[in-house]
Amino acid sequence: MPEEPIVTPYEVKGEVDYDKLIKQFGTQPITDELLERLKKHTKTLHPYLTRKIFFSHRDFDWLLDQQEKNNPFYLYTGRGPSENVHIGHVTVWRFTKWLQDQFDCELWFQLTDDEKFLFKDKLSLEETNSMAYENALDIIALGFKPKKTFLFADTDYAGHMYREAIKVAKYLTVSTVKATFGLKDEDNIGQIFYTSMQSVPCFLPSVLKKKKIPCLIPLAIDQDPHFRITRDIMPKLGYYKPAILHQRFLPALTGTGKMSSSEGVAIYTTDSPIVVKQKINKYAFSGGRETIEEHRKLGGDIAKDIPYQWLTFFEEDDVKLKKIHDEYVSGKLLSGEIKQILIEKLNEFLKEHQRKREKAKSQLDNYILKD
Amino acid sequence: MPEEPIVTPYEVKGEVDYDKLIKQFGTQPITDELLERLKKHTKTLHPYLTRKIFFSHRDFDWLLDQQEKNNPFYLYTGRGPSENVHIGHVTVWRFTKWLQDQFDCELWFQLTDDEKFLFKDKLSLEETNSMAYENALDIIALGFKPKKTFLFADTDYAGHMYREAIKVAKYLTVSTVKATFGLKDEDNIGQIFYTSMQSVPCFLPSVLKKKKIPCLIPLAIDQDPHFRITRDIMPKLGYYKPAILHQRFLPALTGTGKMSSSEGVAIYTTDSPIVVKQKINKYAFSGGRETIEEHRKLGGDIAKDIPYQWLTFFEEDDVKLKKIHDEYVSGKLLSGEIKQILIEKLNEFLKEHQRKREKAKSQLDNYILKD
Repeated sequence: MPEEPIVTPYEVKGEVDYDKLIKQFGTQPITDELLERLKKHTKTLHPYLTRKIFFSHRDFDWLLDQQEKNNPFYLYTGRGPSENVHIGHVTVWRFTKWLQDQFDCELWFQLTDDEKFLFKDKLSLEETNSMAYENALDIIALGFKPKKTFLFADTDYAGHMYREAIKVAKYLTVSTVKATFGLKDEDNIGQIFYTSMQSVPCFLPSVLKKKKIPCLIPLAIDQDPHFRITRDIMPKLGYYKPAILHQRFLPALTGTGKMSSSEGVAIYTTDSPIVVKQKINKYAFSGGRETIEEHRKLGGDIAKDIPYQWLTFFEEDDVKLKKIHDEYVSGKLLSGEIKQILIEKLNEFLKEHQRKREKAKSQLDNYILKD
Repeated sequence: MPEEPIVTPYEVKGEVDYDKLIKQFGTQPITDELLERLKKHTKTLHPYLTRKIFFSHRDFDWLLDQQEKNNPFYLYTGRGPSENVHIGHVTVWRFTKWLQDQFDCELWFQLTDDEKFLFKDKLSLEETNSMAYENALDIIALGFKPKKTFLFADTDYAGHMYREAIKVAKYLTVSTVKATFGLKDEDNIGQIFYTSMQSVPCFLPSVLKKKKIPCLIPLAIDQDPHFRITRDIMPKLGYYKPAILHQRFLPALTGTGKMSSSEGVAIYTTDSPIVVKQKINKYAFSGGRETIEEHRKLGGDIAKDIPYQWLTFFEEDDVKLKKIHDEYVSGKLLSGEIKQILIEKLNEFLKEHQRKREKAKSQLDNYILKD
């Protein structure tokens, strides 16, 4: 028997079974009915929805109820600034931007410099804090609305955050946090406390505007445990439980788990075209066959082929994606060729992203909240 | 065998043996030599020193070394604002004011509204925060220097505090905090984290002024565990260990442990003369004898007599105190009479204090730091 996969904010290990995760975490699958209902608001559906890359939710139906009752929501997502942004992070945020455009809503974006400092032995707070503003450039580059998007690094916004965090903390026992995140008595007290800081943006806008505002959090599924806890506590503080949309991980280049720079190879938003090419050619796990002859005969194994899996995240045109799919399965497209398609797709995106990222340096002040 | 007394910031129980505490906590007794050395700086000695009410220290000799090397210190003390100030708290602060006057140094005064919220089930943060500013009036009333005294409530100064607190937290394991404060897995994660906030004023002035500044903390001995922890961590962060002066507790009116409103009767700075009189007469544990005849013959038992013990804190004139002592021991002074002396002494102090406390309402802005 293979070991059970582990999915927490601090560890993702093993082959993730997303259907099992829905049962294990107690979330709801995103059904076609739910998508039809959403479509009444958005007219079109983002390919991440039709492709079930966002595959699970909590209370998204309730959120649409509220929207329909003229009680509109805001978005909340975040980033742990331990290093440069890689393209796995960008996928969640591109979808978040789509949501902001569709609903014309605010986005509260937390940069958890405190978390990364507390969880990474070797990083100083100066390092995680300056990385937060480095990462902010990537977020701004994605084109979020300047007057409706608020980015804040926890330690520079602690005057607002800490007083709310302790209200959450008072309801959270050490046992609960240890069990939820796999923390131990040997871990530091900042790690134990931290989840209460991640809870705060679920209700901070409600505090500041002095009314209960619904909150929607698009995130990769490994972050769910933080908000499972938060959701239990919010009603006790007099706020709504946040609704959540869960994304599958962009798979690791080498084939299992999520792409993560701490384990394996990642492609960063700052990588040059040549580096992207080298990484894909060298590391991307291929579903191609042993020989060209065999490949032509059997076709590529699409379920295992990382270049194809990645294209489901990066080729948003359904028609083009289907063509790639069919040609790869039929054996017409070789594994070197599908890699080349991915390389071009990524480099096309990165070229534009890097240009906007450069421009973002002069736009930081329009987005950043500080005490 | 009686149970071992418990002395932590969150529990003081049993008959406290101060000599044992010195061994148990690993502190140094305040010796006559040390007092002579201090006297070179201060010319006179505060009666709390000659009477060994401040009886123990950590690194006070080192602090005087620094002072003599033109590396002057600042003072740090604090208050947990769960309720009105009682006269037990005032005793430490009057001594702190004497130190400020002698050394013309800064005083950083922490109001731990977060702590009291996290440790008291029934108190809201709004309550502990507004109590912090109520308590600040008592502190200001004692006459600390306006331009050299900085009062701050943790949640209103968290923009400065939190980023430093997590630097301490990173070095502190959950086990250490549980062992030091008697906390358990059922306690909340804010309680576990809190001690790192209490550490911050030990080095915040050094952070803000960008140089290492020695720190002296006068406190009641039950607060020592916080700083025992802090002292281990400060060198790792590149700061000095704080020096500490430990005070004995003002004994409880009823005779054992420290005076505390949560357990027993306390006299508040806002009590009226009639209330003070009633509390002393009704509750003060007396060392007087069963009958007047016996008392005249044997004299009062001064070691057990709370009115006398309290006068060692409130009658600062050594000559007057000795007279009371001798007359009580000889049986000349009756227990009703020594109570009357204490009542008059307290009411005299409180009358003046309440006048200054009223005046302090217009002076808050000169003392309070906020983000």
